[in-house]
Amino acid sequence: MRALVTGGAGFIGSHLIDRLVSRGDQVTVLDNMSSGKLEFIQQHVDSGNVTLINGDITDFDDVKKVMKDIDCVYHLAANPDIRLGTKITDTDLKQGTIATYNVLESMRIFGVKRIVFASSSVVYGENAPMPTPESHGPCMPISLYGASKQAGEGLISSWVGTFGLQAWIFRFANIIGERGTHGVIFDFIHKLKANPECLEVLGNGLQEKSYMEVGDCVDGILHILDNSDEPLNLFNLGSHDTSSVRRIAEIVIEETGYNDASIEYTGGDRGWAGDIPKAMLSIDKMLSTGYDVRYNSEEAIRHTAKCLINEIGL
Amino acid sequence: MRALVTGGAGFIGSHLIDRLVSRGDQVTVLDNMSSGKLEFIQQHVDSGNVTLINGDITDFDDVKKVMKDIDCVYHLAANPDIRLGTKITDTDLKQGTIATYNVLESMRIFGVKRIVFASSSVVYGENAPMPTPESHGPCMPISLYGASKQAGEGLISSWVGTFGLQAWIFRFANIIGERGTHGVIFDFIHKLKANPECLEVLGNGLQEKSYMEVGDCVDGILHILDNSDEPLNLFNLGSHDTSSVRRIAEIVIEETGYNDASIEYTGGDRGWAGDIPKAMLSIDKMLSTGYDVRYNSEEAIRHTAKCLINEIGL
Repeated sequence: MRALVTGGAGFIGSHLIDRLVSRGDQVTVLDNMSSGKLEFIQQHVDSGNVTLINGDITDFDDVKKVMKDIDCVYHLAANPDIRLGTKITDTDLKQGTIATYNVLESMRIFGVKRIVFASSSVVYGENAPMPTPESHGPCMPISLYGASKQAGEGLISSWVGTFGLQAWIFRFANIIGERGTHGVIFDFIHKLKANPECLEVLGNGLQEKSYMEVGDCVDGILHILDNSDEPLNLFNLGSHDTSSVRRIAEIVIEETGYNDASIEYTGGDRGWAGDIPKAMLSIDKMLSTGYDVRYNSEEAIRHTAKCLINEIGL
Repeated sequence: MRALVTGGAGFIGSHLIDRLVSRGDQVTVLDNMSSGKLEFIQQHVDSGNVTLINGDITDFDDVKKVMKDIDCVYHLAANPDIRLGTKITDTDLKQGTIATYNVLESMRIFGVKRIVFASSSVVYGENAPMPTPESHGPCMPISLYGASKQAGEGLISSWVGTFGLQAWIFRFANIIGERGTHGVIFDFIHKLKANPECLEVLGNGLQEKSYMEVGDCVDGILHILDNSDEPLNLFNLGSHDTSSVRRIAEIVIEETGYNDASIEYTGGDRGWAGDIPKAMLSIDKMLSTGYDVRYNSEEAIRHTAKCLINEIGL
């Protein structure tokens, strides 16, 4: 199989590539290296299994250049910073929605028929029942990032219906783990490094979400790809439980060893406008394929804290 | 109230403006006059109640220019030709998704807080239960037009969640009536005018959809605006029943008087790739506001055939 992974030098992409290479795929990576890092995939580039193209998915010509002879596209590239939409409103439109259009239109031109898309639990918005099943509606995202993921899903669905593509759409819980480049654990470690005496937490700390370890996530993707075959396959990917931001702060403090650090909450029920305070995905459909996760939320958080403290350094 | 109506010189827009003017609103119309017609709103322009700006919603500067001092935006402008997406793939992205972004971002900049959006039943895709309630999920549109409407909904929802807008999203059934500029009845009349002996029908004629008269549609919008007040208000708008394309062909032939015309079907269960063969919206939520339609589907079709035959001429 010849795979194209957009955002392949990034956090989730690089883990996916570890799996794809180990099963013998030949992989092209399209990445603008804005949050991706060469070191994440260096060994595969060196061994000749991965071709890294430094290019921009918002540039249609860049996307077209890498599409020839591809069997399956794993479209992971996106702006990773959900909060950014509160300040700059066209980032998710360009790097999410328009980028996904560029990918699909290039696939149509080159006759590429299979796409895997990294969507997100945030498409459900904040009034969904929990755990939230794939059949929940209406989906009313409250962040611009969520809107771009929903738009990407709709574009893919329309390409399936109009041009005969086959697609797998995965709505991710919070994916965390080794090589993380953003997110709450990453932020907490950087904050503690700057000030070991006090950890500032956005919101009241009671935000409660489901966390999935990145290896569990990419194994789930590949398992479901092998065990589903509809024209359009939609799956939540998550773990069995949730953790609070307060608990994450405690775990990160424990793992850093800065045990005298106080925790200060900025207050309010959410970290920023567009943040969803509580989220838990139903994973029944994922489980029905015979796949289960190794880490629960708290285990994934502690594992991630250890990995990232090692990577970032204190 | 100062209203901005995008696509206000078009089919639905001009009927909405009739109502807005008659209740005393001052209206600005932004329209590129691609399918809109000056004659549809000429009387209101002449009376000074409507200011027509010939501009392009895909051009951010054009949209910004008309947003100052607006109280409510009725965002109706879009590519009206659903079939076009099978041939040209960026029309709905630009005239649907990006245009809606332009409207929302201009609203944010100028502090405009209320938006009404014309969405569509096609966002539900083709596997929805019928009649389809607003809570149906997942929404998986099969046309590029449907994808752009879903993307527009998501953008609006994210602006509500992030920037405090208030929004009304209406998912329309097939809206038909006086001044129609496209759609199956319009097409049939033009085909019969060109060849009174034979009417070619795309598909097998068994496509079965719900039709709503345009006056019923705009009255429903204004009634629901007065009777709902959530941050985000989502309503299907449709009638109580459906009609088949075969029945529409029969009615149009009757109304033209070309009673010897034969009907020829191109075959297949749908008119084109991305067409949804069967669609009927649940209107329970609409009815719960105290609003009901005057026309059922077949009455709306016959009324529309009479109007359009008069407008087009035989």
